[in-house]
This record gives sequence, structure tokens and C-alpha cells, in this order.
Amino acid sequence: MKTSIATVCLSGTLRQKLRAASAAGFDGVEIFEQDLVVAPESPEQIRDYADKLGLSLDLYQPFRDAEGTAEPIFEDTLRRIEEKFSLMNRLGMDLMLIPSNAGTATVDDDSVVAAQLGRLADLAAGYGIRLAYEALAWGRFVNDFEHSWRLVEAADRDNLGICLDTFHILSRAWPTDSIPDIPGDKVFFLQLADAPLMSLDVLSWSRHFRVFPGEGGFELVDFMVKLLAGGYSGPLSLEIFNDSFRQTRVHRTAVDALRSLVWLQDQTARAMEASIGTDAVTTRAAARVGELTRLPGAAVPQGLTWAEVRGQETEQIEVLLMHLGFEHRGRHTSKPVQLWEQGEARVVINEEPGASDEPTMASLGFEVQHPAAAAAHATALKVPEVPRVTREGEQHFPAYLAPDGTEVFFCPPASDGGDRWIEEFSWPDHLDAATTDNPSLGEPLITGIDHVNLAQPKHHYPESVLFYRAALGLSVQPSQDVPGPNGLVSSQVVRNDAGSVRLPLNVAPDLRKDPDVEHVAFSCRDVVGLARRAQTSGLRFLRIPHNYYEDLRARFGLPEEKIRELEELDLLYDRDERGEFLHFYTQTVGSLFFEVVQRIDGYTGYGAPNAPVRMAAQYTHSL
Amino acid sequence: MKTSIATVCLSGTLRQKLRAASAAGFDGVEIFEQDLVVAPESPEQIRDYADKLGLSLDLYQPFRDAEGTAEPIFEDTLRRIEEKFSLMNRLGMDLMLIPSNAGTATVDDDSVVAAQLGRLADLAAGYGIRLAYEALAWGRFVNDFEHSWRLVEAADRDNLGICLDTFHILSRAWPTDSIPDIPGDKVFFLQLADAPLMSLDVLSWSRHFRVFPGEGGFELVDFMVKLLAGGYSGPLSLEIFNDSFRQTRVHRTAVDALRSLVWLQDQTARAMEASIGTDAVTTRAAARVGELTRLPGAAVPQGLTWAEVRGQETEQIEVLLMHLGFEHRGRHTSKPVQLWEQGEARVVINEEPGASDEPTMASLGFEVQHPAAAAAHATALKVPEVPRVTREGEQHFPAYLAPDGTEVFFCPPASDGGDRWIEEFSWPDHLDAATTDNPSLGEPLITGIDHVNLAQPKHHYPESVLFYRAALGLSVQPSQDVPGPNGLVSSQVVRNDAGSVRLPLNVAPDLRKDPDVEHVAFSCRDVVGLARRAQTSGLRFLRIPHNYYEDLRARFGLPEEKIRELEELDLLYDRDERGEFLHFYTQTVGSLFFEVVQRIDGYTGYGAPNAPVRMAAQYTHSL
Repeated sequence: MKTSIATVCLSGTLRQKLRAASAAGFDGVEIFEQDLVVAPESPEQIRDYADKLGLSLDLYQPFRDAEGTAEPIFEDTLRRIEEKFSLMNRLGMDLMLIPSNAGTATVDDDSVVAAQLGRLADLAAGYGIRLAYEALAWGRFVNDFEHSWRLVEAADRDNLGICLDTFHILSRAWPTDSIPDIPGDKVFFLQLADAPLMSLDVLSWSRHFRVFPGEGGFELVDFMVKLLAGGYSGPLSLEIFNDSFRQTRVHRTAVDALRSLVWLQDQTARAMEASIGTDAVTTRAAARVGELTRLPGAAVPQGLTWAEVRGQETEQIEVLLMHLGFEHRGRHTSKPVQLWEQGEARVVINEEPGASDEPTMASLGFEVQHPAAAAAHATALKVPEVPRVTREGEQHFPAYLAPDGTEVFFCPPASDGGDRWIEEFSWPDHLDAATTDNPSLGEPLITGIDHVNLAQPKHHYPESVLFYRAALGLSVQPSQDVPGPNGLVSSQVVRNDAGSVRLPLNVAPDLRKDPDVEHVAFSCRDVVGLARRAQTSGLRFLRIPHNYYEDLRARFGLPEEKIRELEELDLLYDRDERGEFLHFYTQTVGSLFFEVVQRIDGYTGYGAPNAPVRMAAQYTHSL
Repeated sequence: MKTSIATVCLSGTLRQKLRAASAAGFDGVEIFEQDLVVAPESPEQIRDYADKLGLSLDLYQPFRDAEGTAEPIFEDTLRRIEEKFSLMNRLGMDLMLIPSNAGTATVDDDSVVAAQLGRLADLAAGYGIRLAYEALAWGRFVNDFEHSWRLVEAADRDNLGICLDTFHILSRAWPTDSIPDIPGDKVFFLQLADAPLMSLDVLSWSRHFRVFPGEGGFELVDFMVKLLAGGYSGPLSLEIFNDSFRQTRVHRTAVDALRSLVWLQDQTARAMEASIGTDAVTTRAAARVGELTRLPGAAVPQGLTWAEVRGQETEQIEVLLMHLGFEHRGRHTSKPVQLWEQGEARVVINEEPGASDEPTMASLGFEVQHPAAAAAHATALKVPEVPRVTREGEQHFPAYLAPDGTEVFFCPPASDGGDRWIEEFSWPDHLDAATTDNPSLGEPLITGIDHVNLAQPKHHYPESVLFYRAALGLSVQPSQDVPGPNGLVSSQVVRNDAGSVRLPLNVAPDLRKDPDVEHVAFSCRDVVGLARRAQTSGLRFLRIPHNYYEDLRARFGLPEEKIRELEELDLLYDRDERGEFLHFYTQTVGSLFFEVVQRIDGYTGYGAPNAPVRMAAQYTHSL
């Protein structure tokens, strides 16, 4: 379907907004009046510029406080709106948005309001203009889309229809079952917005927290199915008021925006295909599935093949891995890269000359059934590709850049040759693998990567959520706040259903000075055993204060002996309704540290109650 | 009264928090359990450290999910709490906070809950500990302070009382008339919190947006009067969960915190003195006015004596002032400072060697009746003084540093010799004042300083609000958001009642790269005349786009001729229910620009609808 975006979603000047919308691939834009008022270009210049960019000008908006006023005020409204009609003619635009009156309305009488809407439409007709009447969630007398439709039906003018805005409908939890019954050709426009579920007044919620579809908590797929069943065939347009998007770089935001509409169309098509025949509305809507943009199909990753650390000074990382019992598999044949391995946990250390001194998280290898399909999917979502040189004979993996800066690689399963790359690592001839003997080696206790915590740039967080959901097919868990000594860290996990890929995404406080820490948590079959072995070999554990263990005893009533063992090994403990969690942290190197975790009897969390202890200990250590 | 602060209000380690609370002048602290759990020091070490700092440990908090559970769970609660009692003994603490159960409560039966509270108190008595039961705003069954009091009354134990938290009471708008009737000795503790008025769920509102008294919108003075009437004589304690305070520097936050309690006590005493005899509750409370910390009395400023600009490269500022018709009064006898004057508007330009190149706003001179009293008042509020060298014979003004970096000077009225400093500016002997002839000079049209916009650091904004309210006695107007091309600017005016001192405080979006702009708006008796004269003399106006004038015509229906005159002079226009507003802006120099405004027939605003036009024009100009 045709895509559009309101200029108010984007930062910068009107020309910059138009250019970004066009570059991202939008078909059209809504002109937000204020953006035009402050622009130095004339309406004709804007029209020509949009034309040159291949953008249609879909909706002029908003014309406020139009209806429901006493006659003398309404007469001034007619004068005001006629000036705007004439402006729209100069812009070459033919559709205007009339939000329900939230300011000056005094007449709560449907017959008066319908008559006024009719008069506005008659005046508009003289300019070849159509009006889309929209129920604002906070409209004075009209705040429900069914009410706006009754008024439009009563006014009964060809050039008068309604505009549906998902925020205004879903924020107030209006039932949407009647949507398929509104004739599609009377829905003149659709504005799509998602939003996090909050209990804020709808006006503030709308003005600051709207996000693109897939970045919040609204049931937009269900809404789309109902709308399509009703026959709507206008653009899918985004009207997002968001404090971050108003600030972030306009081209990046526009790409994020378009991605959301591509994803939403694909999700809608899939939902329809999955329930055709079982539901009358879906079946009606499904006739139009061919109009929806489709994606090749997200290949949900089945596991993490590697975590890559990059930096010039990685010796301390190597020491940590050695003490955790990792085996050094050798150096890469052509690149300044080495591989450490234990069980299914692989850490690649990249010392390429361009890297910064301090080690940082660089990439994650995701095991997917069909890497080429996953790559095509990411490309269709306009995720930027990461160029990496692959020499002849070396295994190539497609790589994409996540909004948080992580490079995401798609690797086939080992059964499909996905581990061939490991053979690219070897010891130079003059060295014997035996010389790398790791005193910490014993029976491998680490079995794989349990989860990887990724630091998120605050103003791009909604983009990250959509990325992990849309490009990787991961599901998004509820977020929580973790208090640290320098502020609250907001943490939200994205994961696959099996739990074999788990990524807690962390947004740090604004004022932090240090780089955000990230970490890899290894799963372990015997954390006590490993900690004991690592203690002997000299691992630099993150030290946990004694008070923590006293509190643990009070909270859980663990036996004294158990508490003493935990404290001796700097282990942390948690419990949920299913099972127990044992874990420890290493000290931080650069902006990285490691964690080792053991889940007992199906514990599903991440030791969140212990995260403040960890952050305080890291802070104390850094003083 | 005794002052206290919960450690959760402050950033850093527990020791850092204690040190900051002590340095700011608090008498005691509440120990927030998590801060102790993550601390490397033992309870005994914390006790000794607090003792060394002269801080009492007033309240151990919180012990959650204590009451209203089934018997087996309650028995584990008794075990849990006993561990904490023993910990409190080691800390030397005797008061614990029991918030009403918001998590595990299943028993909605007052007789059961009262009995459980009684058993907890009996157990506590064995450790010499008292319990303060508090109704959380989101408690499962108990969320109203009157309910918590009924339960405590029913349990009837000497060592069981209630804790009142103004957030939990005022956020839910519980009537407070019964507070004087609760025996003061059964109110074991008072937690004071202010908050901006919001329609967010109380839990999120409480966890993120609490601020110190005087920084939000709660009626805390009224609450204090009622509480004192009831006989409360415990500490005034702050428990503020705020995303910014968790990040800002601990010493600065602690001073801000103490300032709020000093101000609140003084405001409470004043309110009582003003209505003794007229109101029974106030009269009862007033008997205790002597226990309240008092302030010398804010001398509300009657006007702005000067605005000072500082920088090495100020020539362009001088050119702007010249074109606006300012007269150069000369250079200072001993400092690298010059004075420009027109009507009552004075701009001091300070080229001191330490200043940055780009000119910035440096200070404001406030005319107050008694500068020494104003200074004593600011000192009592722990506002940092600004050291300035005053030579013999030069007029000295006390100066204080506002949280936004503005230096605030207190100057006596001209009638009291407040303009003697002007005589310190003169022309060197070899120059004649006549040589400075300003071609723009005519009849002076600028009459004074209408308002000054000050940029605010986001994370210190609550501190700024309290500063202008408490140290300068200004009142705080509702805030509004202004959309700019790089994000929303939040703007809130502080002013005196007469309107002769008006300071719009602006918080810019996070991601801005340029320094925040500030500006001085001059009042003018004839903006059209001045603009015409300035246009002739070559003033660099901020250019306003033609589209703005077309929109103006649509909005206000102004005559074509008027619109043309406005556009020709780059004038902006606004109207409110009282009158009209005409204004124009100069271009920006460094982070500064000037505005000239004319208020016609009592217009009270600041041309807010035009601010987005201004910001867009400034942005376009900067590209």
C-alpha cells in the first residue's frame, strides 16, 4: 500500500524532512501546517520540490477548532479555512485534516455539528478539496471514531469523510469491531501510531511518547485487518509526536519510520494468511493481501554462534577467558583475530588496527536456518549492511548494523556447515597447541552463551526495539528499571521463544560519563565448581559486599553453610517461582565484563534483583 | 525542626551520600536498605561513620510486604523482619518504615491486619525498635493514611505509629482535614515530597518525578500547618525518587534538598503568622512557630537593573545595541567593562580576559529594597556567593550563583543610590562622548528590560525553580512546550507580581549540539518606529518567512496593510484576550540575541506562538 509520513515526525527544516522522506522510500507526506509556516520557501516551491522528489502531498493538517462553535465564531472559521483552502490549491493538495474541536467547542449537538461539517465541506468543494474529520482522543464533545463517523454520515457530503488515527482509538481502548462496517471509501485517511502502554493522560501521552508501529504496545495488526476488511485503500501514514524523533537525525528517523510500515504490512499479511476461513473479517480483508508489501521472512535465530570483542588492548580479556576455562583455538589465517572457545561459547577477539584501545563488544553471530533469506529480509527492512572483507576460501556471513552499533551476522547451523569458519583459526607452525595449555582447563563447565547485554543509545531505543523485533523476529519482554549509583538503567529483554537467544537491552542514565558497559553471560553447568576453579587460577572476580549475603539470608532463609559458600566465591543468588539462579561477574575491562550463570530448574530471569549490587560494586571499584 | 533525608535521594555510594548530607547541614538520614546492601562497609562502620559526621540514623526503610498475608507467609515475614531488627541494632537504629503491602497481600480484613501489625510491633519491642506504618498510594488494600491510622489505633501498641508521606497523600488528593486530629506522638515520621502535577499512574509518578518541596505543585505549606497542629515533633525528612537527582552530583543535590526544607519551614511560619486567629488549626499550629527555621525574608526584586554579557569578541553585540538606539555610556574606571544604556535598559559588556570568545549571558542586576537582607536570605538558603573584586570607592553589590549559571546581583533602588555604579563608567579624557555619536539615536524608544530568557540545564531544572522561588521570591507560571526544528523546548516563566521582573526559563532538547541560546527582550514604546529606524541604520534582523504572514492573516484576519507593514519590518504579532503584542528579534551572536517587544493594552504573554517561527528561522540561518 502507499506509504506516507507527517512532516512533524521528523527533525529539521521542511526541505530536509521532504528529502529524508523521499530518500527513505516514502510515497508521500502529510504537511504539518507549522512546518510550512516556518519555512522560507513558498507553497509553490514546496509543491515543486516534493514533485521533484517524487513525493505526493497527501494531507494538509491540522485545521483546528473547526466545528461545534456558536455561529459568529463559526463564520470566522469559514474565513480562516478558506484562506487555507486557497493555500492548499497553491500546494496542489486536495485533502485536509479536521480534528474534532478540543479548544473552542461549546455546542454539544450532533445536528449542529453535522450541519457545520457540511458547510465546511461545501466551501471546500469549491476548491476541489476533501475534508477528513478525525475524533481526537481529547476532543471536547467528539472523541470516539464511531461518533465522528455518525457525524460524517449525517452531513452526507461526497467530499467529507473520516480520518482514523490508531493512537486516538487505541489509547482510549475504544472497541474496534465496528471498523469493518465503515465503508472503506469514507475513510479518507489513516494515521498509524504505536505507543508504549502507559497510564498518562492521553494528551501528554500522544504529544511525547508516540512511536512507530512495532516500537510500542498497541495491537496494530488486528486494527489493520479490520480496516482492510472495510475496504480502506488510502495511504498508510505515520503521525508520530515523539520527543526523541524530533531530535534525531532526519534521514535515520525516516528509514526507521518506513521500516515500521514495511514490517506492519508483512505482519498483517501473515496474520491474515494464518486465519483465513476461521474468521469472517480476516477472510474479507485477505482478499487484499496482494496490496501489502511483503518481507522474505525473518529467520528467527536459534542460537548465538559467537560474541566478538574488538580493541587494541585485549590481553586482560584473554586472561579472563583463560581463567574461565576457555581454550584458545588460535589465530585467524588472514585477519588479526583470535578465537576462544568452551562448549558452545565462542569469543572472537579482534585486534584490527582501526579499533580503539579499550575492548568493546563488536558483533554477534546469530545462527539462522537460511542466512541468505535472513539477509534479504534485513535488506528489505533497509537495515544497513556492514561491509566486511572475506578472502577466497574463507566462510562469508552477511552482516548488518543494529541501531545500537552491534554488528549482526547471520550464520548457518553447524549441521549445515556453519562452523567451517572455526577451521580458519589455527596455531602458527612454530607453535604447538600444547604450549597454550591453560591451567584453568579441566572438564569444560561453560556450555554456551546464555545472554548478551547490549547498551542502547537512549534516543534510538524505539528503533532498536523495532530492529530486534522485525529484522530478527525476537519478541520483546516488559521493561524494568534498575537503580545504579549514578541513576536508573532501563532494561528490556528481547529473545526467541526457545530462550536460546536472549539480549537484555540497557539504556543508561543521560549524565553518565563512562562508556556504557556491556557483557556476555556464559551458561554453566556448575557455577560453584567453575568459581572454585577460577578462584584458584586467579580470576579477577567482581567482589560482592558482605551485606549482600546478610540480606540474602534474610530474604530467602538459605542455610548458613550455603550463604557462606556463596560469599566465599562472590556468587550471587536469585529465585523465582520455578527455580534458582547462581551467577558471578568478572571485573570490567574497557567497557566489557563477563558473567557466568547457572539456571536451576527452569529459572527464567536474569538475576535482576542483583543488578544494583553489581552496578554498585562496579562503581565502587572504579572510584 | 530536625531535618533528614533518605539516602535514595542522592547519587553515589552510601558513604558519599552520608558525607554530602552532613556537609549540606542535615541532622540525620533515612537509610534506604538497598544502599546498605550494596555498601562494602559493615553496619557498624556505617554507624560509626554517621556518628563521626554528626548524622543521626533516623529511619530504616522499607520493610516491604509485611502485613495482610496468610499465616504461613506471615510467619516467614516474622523471620525476615527479625533479621532486619538485629541489623538495626547493629546500626544503632530504632525506627523502621513498614509501607502498606503492595505485593503479596491477600487478606483484606482490618482485624487480621491490625493483629499482624501488633505482632510485628511486639517482636520489634524486644529489640527496642519502633515501627512506622505508611499507606502507600498504590497499596493493595491500604492506600489512604486514615486507613493506616485506624489500623495502628486498633493494634494499639506503644511502639507502633504511622508514617505520613506527602506524596502518597497529595498524589491521590486524599482530604487532609483529619491530620490535626491524629495525635502527634503517633505520627512517628514525616516524609516530605513535592511533585509536578501530572496525570500519570501514582507508582510511575512517584518513582521518577518526585522533587524537593517548592519544586513541584503540591500544597505542602497547608499540609505542614495541619501536621504541626496535630503535634508532630519528629524530623522533616525528604524521600525523593527522581531520575535526575539519582544522577546529579551528590553534594549539589544535598544542598538543594536542605534548601527546600529551610524554605518550607519559613513559608509555613509565614502562613501561620498571616492567619493566626482566623483559623483554629493554624492558631494551634502557630504555638510551634518557634521550632521552625526562619529566613531573613526574600526581598522580591522590583526590577532588572542591568543584564551583563561576557565574552572576548563582543563587537557584534555592540553593533546590535547601537542599531537599537542604545547609548554607549563609556568604560569602567577599573575593569574591562562597558555600559550601554537606553531608558531603563542597561547592558553591561564585560570583556574580562578569562571570558570565552563568544559572548554569553553572565549576570543580572536585580533591584531590591534591601540588598543586605536579600544577601542574608540567599546565604541562609546556602546559595553560593560569587566573589567579585570591588575597588575602594566603587559600588559593591552582593552576588550569588543561580543553578543555571547566571550571576544574580542585588542592587538598591536608584532612589537609594542604586545607580551610583553608573558613574563608574566614563569616557577617557582624550575621547569626547560626542565622538560616540550613534546614528541610530533619536528619541529613545526602548524603555527597559521586559524579560530575560535563561537557558536551564535539564537535570538541574527543579533546583532552578526552587532557587527563583525561594531566593528571589518569584512566582512560577505553568510550563509549556515549544516545538523547534531540533526538538521540544520546555519553557516556564518565573516573575514578580508586578510583572517588572520576568524570566522565561528554557530547557532545551538533550541532543542539541550548539550552546543554548539566551536573550534579553527590551520593552519598547513604539516597535514599528524603532524597527523602521533600525532598518535604516542596518540592524541585522532575524528574517521572518513570508508564509508566517499569510498564516497571520488567516488566523487573525488583520488588514492587508497591517500585514504588509509587519512583514516589511520582520515584526511578529500575537494577541490574547487583553491586548496585542508586537516584537522582533535580532540575529544571534554567540549564544545571545536581543528581542524588542511592545505590549499593547495589557497583553500578558511572551509571543509563545511565534517562538517556533523564531527557532526555525534561527536554525535555517545557522545552516
